[in-house]
Amino acid sequence: MSRKKHDKTSSMKKISKKGRFFFLALDQGLEHGPMDFNDKTIDPEHIIKLSTKMDITGIILQKGLAIKYSENFMKKVPLILKLNGKTLLSKREPFASQITSVKEAVDIGANAIGYTVYVGSDMESDMFRIAGKIEEEARDYNLPFVIWSYPRGRSISKPTNPDTVEYAARVALELGADITKIHYTGNKKSFSKVIKAAGRCKVITAGGPLEPLGNFFKDAKNIMAAGADGMAIGRNIWQHDDPLDVSKKIASIIFGKKR
Amino acid sequence: MSRKKHDKTSSMKKISKKGRFFFLALDQGLEHGPMDFNDKTIDPEHIIKLSTKMDITGIILQKGLAIKYSENFMKKVPLILKLNGKTLLSKREPFASQITSVKEAVDIGANAIGYTVYVGSDMESDMFRIAGKIEEEARDYNLPFVIWSYPRGRSISKPTNPDTVEYAARVALELGADITKIHYTGNKKSFSKVIKAAGRCKVITAGGPLEPLGNFFKDAKNIMAAGADGMAIGRNIWQHDDPLDVSKKIASIIFGKKR
Amino acid sequence: MSRKKHDKTSSMKKISKKGRFFFLALDQGLEHGPMDFNDKTIDPEHIIKLSTKMDITGIILQKGLAIKYSENFMKKVPLILKLNGKTLLSKREPFASQITSVKEAVDIGANAIGYTVYVGSDMESDMFRIAGKIEEEARDYNLPFVIWSYPRGRSISKPTNPDTVEYAARVALELGADITKIHYTGNKKSFSKVIKAAGRCKVITAGGPLEPLGNFFKDAKNIMAAGADGMAIGRNIWQHDDPLDVSKKIASIIFGKKR
Amino acid sequence: MSRKKHDKTSSMKKISKKGRFFFLALDQGLEHGPMDFNDKTIDPEHIIKLSTKMDITGIILQKGLAIKYSENFMKKVPLILKLNGKTLLSKREPFASQITSVKEAVDIGANAIGYTVYVGSDMESDMFRIAGKIEEEARDYNLPFVIWSYPRGRSISKPTNPDTVEYAARVALELGADITKIHYTGNKKSFSKVIKAAGRCKVITAGGPLEPLGNFFKDAKNIMAAGADGMAIGRNIWQHDDPLDVSKKIASIIFGKKR
Amino acid sequence: MSRKKHDKTSSMKKISKKGRFFFLALDQGLEHGPMDFNDKTIDPEHIIKLSTKMDITGIILQKGLAIKYSENFMKKVPLILKLNGKTLLSKREPFASQITSVKEAVDIGANAIGYTVYVGSDMESDMFRIAGKIEEEARDYNLPFVIWSYPRGRSISKPTNPDTVEYAARVALELGADITKIHYTGNKKSFSKVIKAAGRCKVITAGGPLEPLGNFFKDAKNIMAAGADGMAIGRNIWQHDDPLDVSKKIASIIFGKKR
Repeated sequence: MSRKKHDKTSSMKKISKKGRFFFLALDQGLEHGPMDFNDKTIDPEHIIKLSTKMDITGIILQKGLAIKYSENFMKKVPLILKLNGKTLLSKREPFASQITSVKEAVDIGANAIGYTVYVGSDMESDMFRIAGKIEEEARDYNLPFVIWSYPRGRSISKPTNPDTVEYAARVALELGADITKIHYTGNKKSFSKVIKAAGRCKVITAGGPLEPLGNFFKDAKNIMAAGADGMAIGRNIWQHDDPLDVSKKIASIIFGKKR
Repeated sequence: MSRKKHDKTSSMKKISKKGRFFFLALDQGLEHGPMDFNDKTIDPEHIIKLSTKMDITGIILQKGLAIKYSENFMKKVPLILKLNGKTLLSKREPFASQITSVKEAVDIGANAIGYTVYVGSDMESDMFRIAGKIEEEARDYNLPFVIWSYPRGRSISKPTNPDTVEYAARVALELGADITKIHYTGNKKSFSKVIKAAGRCKVITAGGPLEPLGNFFKDAKNIMAAGADGMAIGRNIWQHDDPLDVSKKIASIIFGKKR
Repeated sequence: MSRKKHDKTSSMKKISKKGRFFFLALDQGLEHGPMDFNDKTIDPEHIIKLSTKMDITGIILQKGLAIKYSENFMKKVPLILKLNGKTLLSKREPFASQITSVKEAVDIGANAIGYTVYVGSDMESDMFRIAGKIEEEARDYNLPFVIWSYPRGRSISKPTNPDTVEYAARVALELGADITKIHYTGNKKSFSKVIKAAGRCKVITAGGPLEPLGNFFKDAKNIMAAGADGMAIGRNIWQHDDPLDVSKKIASIIFGKKR
Repeated sequence: MSRKKHDKTSSMKKISKKGRFFFLALDQGLEHGPMDFNDKTIDPEHIIKLSTKMDITGIILQKGLAIKYSENFMKKVPLILKLNGKTLLSKREPFASQITSVKEAVDIGANAIGYTVYVGSDMESDMFRIAGKIEEEARDYNLPFVIWSYPRGRSISKPTNPDTVEYAARVALELGADITKIHYTGNKKSFSKVIKAAGRCKVITAGGPLEPLGNFFKDAKNIMAAGADGMAIGRNIWQHDDPLDVSKKIASIIFGKKR
Repeated sequence: MSRKKHDKTSSMKKISKKGRFFFLALDQGLEHGPMDFNDKTIDPEHIIKLSTKMDITGIILQKGLAIKYSENFMKKVPLILKLNGKTLLSKREPFASQITSVKEAVDIGANAIGYTVYVGSDMESDMFRIAGKIEEEARDYNLPFVIWSYPRGRSISKPTNPDTVEYAARVALELGADITKIHYTGNKKSFSKVIKAAGRCKVITAGGPLEPLGNFFKDAKNIMAAGADGMAIGRNIWQHDDPLDVSKKIASIIFGKKR
């Protein structure tokens, strides 16, 4: 029985800098809807064009934006293609079905793929099954696999609780993710423990809703000091008046020497 | 890894005129049943023959009519084949399953394909999954993909609410639709915002139930003035006494220079 | 893109006479159980042998009877193979799963295939999806496709209501059926409207439970006078003392000149 | 269109004697659990070795026993491989999923395959669908197909009620089973009617729980006298002190001339 | 019909010693989360490196750890790859979906595969179906198949009840498992009965939560004395201060001559 050789070293390099990840998130159109945007940012072209001037290592998009705005970023900014998603409208137990196949992601030009798992949801088993298949296909393409590991559903009381985030981080490792995007627990000490639980799976944080810049930079420093491998940020960059300036400051925190 | 080239420029031209879309909708037989028709229009042949005399850029049909009345319109009127549908009889959470495969649509002679997504329904995830597969196949055929993006289900209080329609429009863009067919919000200002949320996805409106012609033309003008790319109209054309005349007036609104 | 040529003209001829259809129904063993039969008719051989002496254009069977009694009718009576079915025992929302594939139906020697859709049932979407696939396969084989279009389920108050039957007839057309088997509405006028709603989809009626012969013949005349293309009859033939005589009288109503 | 020739004459002969079937049932380990066994019979080897000394025409096993005890019976006793099963632990509506594929059954060396359908259960449609596929595959292999046709579920008040058993027997015929294993109704007259309803589908009875031998032999004689084609017996053989002797007496009832 | 030859003799030898199995379990990261670990053991590298110094016949991992820590144990410790799993967060009826395919397990380098069946759960039928497919594929690869057979769900009052464990053990045999991992019933006598019910399916016990060493060794001796074929232990080894020493003592119990 011959065994295939898989090595993601070079594909991981394409979406990182100094081993760190700084992704601009622009998948909110599906996840949260237009309410997350202002008059400028509602136009994807606006943000996507800005992204080419930022010191980022990837932009996170659903296939719709990746296809329709391809000319505006492709080959300039690495593409992290999100494969599943849902709106926030339905009250049912959270589940985000797969919208894009790994094959199509490759066809579109993705440098990495992302999939959300709602850990603890009653639909968890469906998402584990699908994540498992995606991981298998992603390895065949040597494509980095990012798991959004978010505790959700009627059984989860607080999704940012340190124990819960720690469990979510470990789930991503166990499912074979190369990178996991998780909630920040709110303090360096507990988040440092979370990162240990993820083992050799890289850890990046989700940006969350718009915050005062001071708070946000302080959190970013603590996240990186706790040992995180990077951040994925959307609203806290492109909802500010000077997104390029904000992105520059975040880049210096993420890629800076000190942790 | 070689990447396929997809280009829908020429296929989009076949279902448009001056970049605008004017579709005659005739999928009500499945969606609403015979109550939408009168003694003449209950006969599909009647409407389908009329359609060949209208200045339209496509007719919307389920596969049954497309196959059985093929000789009456094929090669004269472009075919927008609707791939899913449901009756309005069942009280369950709205879901319209796929009835026609993309391959069969091509085989029948479709110039574009349509799929309804009930945004916010508890079955949303199933429709996103299927829409995602259809989009992938449609690109392989360079076939324009139209998403009917309708907010529906127990979590939706008002499907024509501007915020809700805006979300629905954005969903279509994120899923990779080339065109989205959505509800009109009722006024130009709010609809203009909706259109922005759809980005590079073309926006056309659904016609809705029979209205007095004056109102209908006023709405049509506002819709186009708001920046819409066209309209899909059924009952407000073929339920009137002189459908050809009504269609002429709508054509001049849709294809006219002023917005 | 080359388009396959489909033409069912000759296959439709094999299951009709003068453009009319007279099918002997014998699928009650699954749908209703032994209570529909008497001591003689409980033996399928008895009815199947009789069928070869009748002036019918097809016999409706599930695959079990078609296979086991093949020697008794094959090449003498055209076979309308029913692809799905259910017992009447379960109280759940009505759904009849597919038991026989189109490929197997062809292998068994079917001249046409039938599929029941419970219009308005909460399981409607599953049946639409499956009916859609069957239609596609049936066209590849140029095999006539008959849809049993029966309104059923918790949302349906009266399945023989003219509006409801009309909707069901139209559904069959929209799904691409060549023939639809529907309930008789009880009077010529309303049934004539139903037939119009079915457009180019042929309409035949379901026979229903045993009735006095006078009533039954009167109904049959009205059904054909309303414009129906034929009838499918079971119990009202083989539960009578002289099935051959009854079938002869029905044949003269169906194939007679007057409508 | 070429039609495949299927003929099970020779494969049916391999699992019968004088046209009668006597199967030793040993699938209780999954269906009922260890409580059906005593200290000796809990060891499958014990019963399987005994089976080679009995005048039986087949042994009924799940794949686990068929594979692990292959050396003890293969080529000596024909194998009736049960393809589905369930424990009696769960309180949900009865459904037994397919555990073994037809292909694997052939690979293991099965001479016939068995599948349980819970007629009237809310899951009936799933079992009909799967039984339909198995029948199709079984015919491709010319492999006898046995349906365990058991009325079960919240809609079934009494599974051994003559009307209900009659319906179940007919269901097996309609689904294309070669043999159906059903409950005994308790008296010759009603069971004779049941057998008629099954038409050309062979009828064998399920043994049921341990009974006094006198009763059991009396029932067996009535079952065969009613026209049954055989019996499948487990506990009433191997739970007795002298299984070989009991099996000999049953064999003489099943294979004896008188009915 | 040619029959494939399957023989797991040599593959079973690779994961055993003197016919006994001693597996180090490290799948708790998914099943229980970080709360099962301490500051050292939360790092998979720590335990995995230790495992290479233990006298074990295999390590149990989900694919995430197997892939990411491959360099640390591969070719030194046989890999028992767990194919399914779930977190303990959701309150729904227990079901653990398949995360890793058999093909991928082979690709990763697994020497055996494991799958959990929650016997008696309302989802039992899904797990039986999947276990059945895995067994078929595993035999094609001559790969030992281990079933975690755990009674769970609303119908199970006590999962370690001797009757219940006995049933679970038999289920594993019936499904075709080579080895079953089950709960210890708590005493030698009842467990000896359980082992008999498993027939030719090897029986190993699940370790369970951390216990005082004295108790644990006593249990281990009774388990082996009852006739078990080995043990799978996690927390009771790596949560102790001197895991290597504990593992040595357990090895002598498992591989020792006396039972």
